[in-house]
Amino acid sequence: MGEVVLAVDIGGTKTAAAVADRSDVLLRTEVAPTPAAEGPAAVVATVAALAARLLPEATTFAGVGIGTAGVVDASTGTIVSATDTFADWPGTPLAALVRAALGPRLQPDAVVAVQNDVDAHAAGEHRHGAASGAASALIVAVGTGVGAGLILDGRAARGAHHVAGEIAHLPTPGAEHLRCPCGRRGHLEAIGSGIGMHRHFLSLGGDPTIRDARGVATAAAAGDPVARRALEESAAAVGRALAGAATILDPERFVVTGGVPNIGEAWWGPMRAAYRAEAIDALQSTPILPGALGDDAPLRGAAASAWRNS
Amino acid sequence: MGEVVLAVDIGGTKTAAAVADRSDVLLRTEVAPTPAAEGPAAVVATVAALAARLLPEATTFAGVGIGTAGVVDASTGTIVSATDTFADWPGTPLAALVRAALGPRLQPDAVVAVQNDVDAHAAGEHRHGAASGAASALIVAVGTGVGAGLILDGRAARGAHHVAGEIAHLPTPGAEHLRCPCGRRGHLEAIGSGIGMHRHFLSLGGDPTIRDARGVATAAAAGDPVARRALEESAAAVGRALAGAATILDPERFVVTGGVPNIGEAWWGPMRAAYRAEAIDALQSTPILPGALGDDAPLRGAAASAWRNS
Repeated sequence: MGEVVLAVDIGGTKTAAAVADRSDVLLRTEVAPTPAAEGPAAVVATVAALAARLLPEATTFAGVGIGTAGVVDASTGTIVSATDTFADWPGTPLAALVRAALGPRLQPDAVVAVQNDVDAHAAGEHRHGAASGAASALIVAVGTGVGAGLILDGRAARGAHHVAGEIAHLPTPGAEHLRCPCGRRGHLEAIGSGIGMHRHFLSLGGDPTIRDARGVATAAAAGDPVARRALEESAAAVGRALAGAATILDPERFVVTGGVPNIGEAWWGPMRAAYRAEAIDALQSTPILPGALGDDAPLRGAAASAWRNS
Repeated sequence: MGEVVLAVDIGGTKTAAAVADRSDVLLRTEVAPTPAAEGPAAVVATVAALAARLLPEATTFAGVGIGTAGVVDASTGTIVSATDTFADWPGTPLAALVRAALGPRLQPDAVVAVQNDVDAHAAGEHRHGAASGAASALIVAVGTGVGAGLILDGRAARGAHHVAGEIAHLPTPGAEHLRCPCGRRGHLEAIGSGIGMHRHFLSLGGDPTIRDARGVATAAAAGDPVARRALEESAAAVGRALAGAATILDPERFVVTGGVPNIGEAWWGPMRAAYRAEAIDALQSTPILPGALGDDAPLRGAAASAWRNS
């Protein structure tokens, strides 16, 4: 084995880790759940345990790349803010803690790079996936929430407060009756996420025995008119938000990934139609592509950040 | 006089030109109206006539910077698209035509730089005005229309189709009943521009003898409740759109200029309140500043682009 790096994806439900060379992920493993409620020391110990499981003691890592839940100051590898799921996560100097925990497992000049998990996802699709070769792209993950990472001039754009690309909180027509996890009403995530789609379905008087977006999609496919409407309006909100992002950013490409787009054409059809209805003429032909890497994207993007001169 | 450049601002109603050194505009003149309907040759002849009026024949320009109506490919100085006001403007190689028309008035290695007039406005505020020193900023001009220019990494961001920063066409809650000049409904410009504010006022049953946004503002100040509502909702739409742009771009700063913000606190109050109501916590304190250069901004920005190594 030539030089390798450690890639880590710290999410609310699980922590995945992999050994990667410059071109691909070679070995991977994971633990679930992430001990998020036990605090930073437990999460860092999990990362060290995964590293030990992946590679024998004698082998060292040329670098570590981490994608994690929370808002991250990538320049210092510190957590800026996070949801309550992660106890004491804000302020955690994650890069420094992981460097200390891995100690001799790291080469002396190893990079330890930390970024937000959605940014890692975007970096993965940009380095190896559907945004490959694009100078600018917005990579949007639509799952239980809505996350997005922004590539500008070929690099991740973080913004002045580390939140650039946060399309989740775009005020979106048609979502006024729904509360966003940020506490405000009418943002994209309130209707466009999987949870949002389900809440919108219930707000329309949908069958309360249906428990999630998957159930809404199944009911829509079976002909339930309320489910079909909820699915279409949730998808349309994403398309409308992409049109809004397009007019502000004018990216070369959009990439849309995550569990909700996996619903298929019943989602992509109304999403694309809403985009076309809103976007100005110059932006009608901006490609909107499905992600190419699936669940591997965050680990691939984390791995890419771990190399010196990456 | 040391080395000087020619700065030009080609608008629908007038064409302004100035002689500038590296720090300021030294002399300015203008003609109105721009002979937009007569085609590109007449517009270029106007630019040459203004240059002749500004400086005696013996003096040469070290460069020319032009801000013009229309979508511009700044890399080639060619007009990409424009409204019908400018006859035959799309496809015009404006940089090449102005270079030919000025001939010996230009130094041999002179730059002839062309950009969109709103981008020139943004560049002026970034070089010399309210966005000075910001690595990233969105500069929004709210007048008869809504224009915006985007600064990222200290430079103008143009996007993949030369339309980055076009906040005018952001889908905006509360504008669904109004048609945007682009032909679609519900975009920011349909309610947030001066024309939009007036149309919104009429849609609310406002006094039809009031003819424009200035009249709406005057009536609102005099206590007309419909005028006050139209003014507040128009301003709020701008604030909501800025919050949307903030969540996507996370700029260091917003600068808002133009005739509509000149209404004063009756406009700024509801605009800022709507921003605060929508923006996520991390973006609550992003500064929103009034422009510092007024009508000089486009000429200052055009001048800045005219210098070699600008």
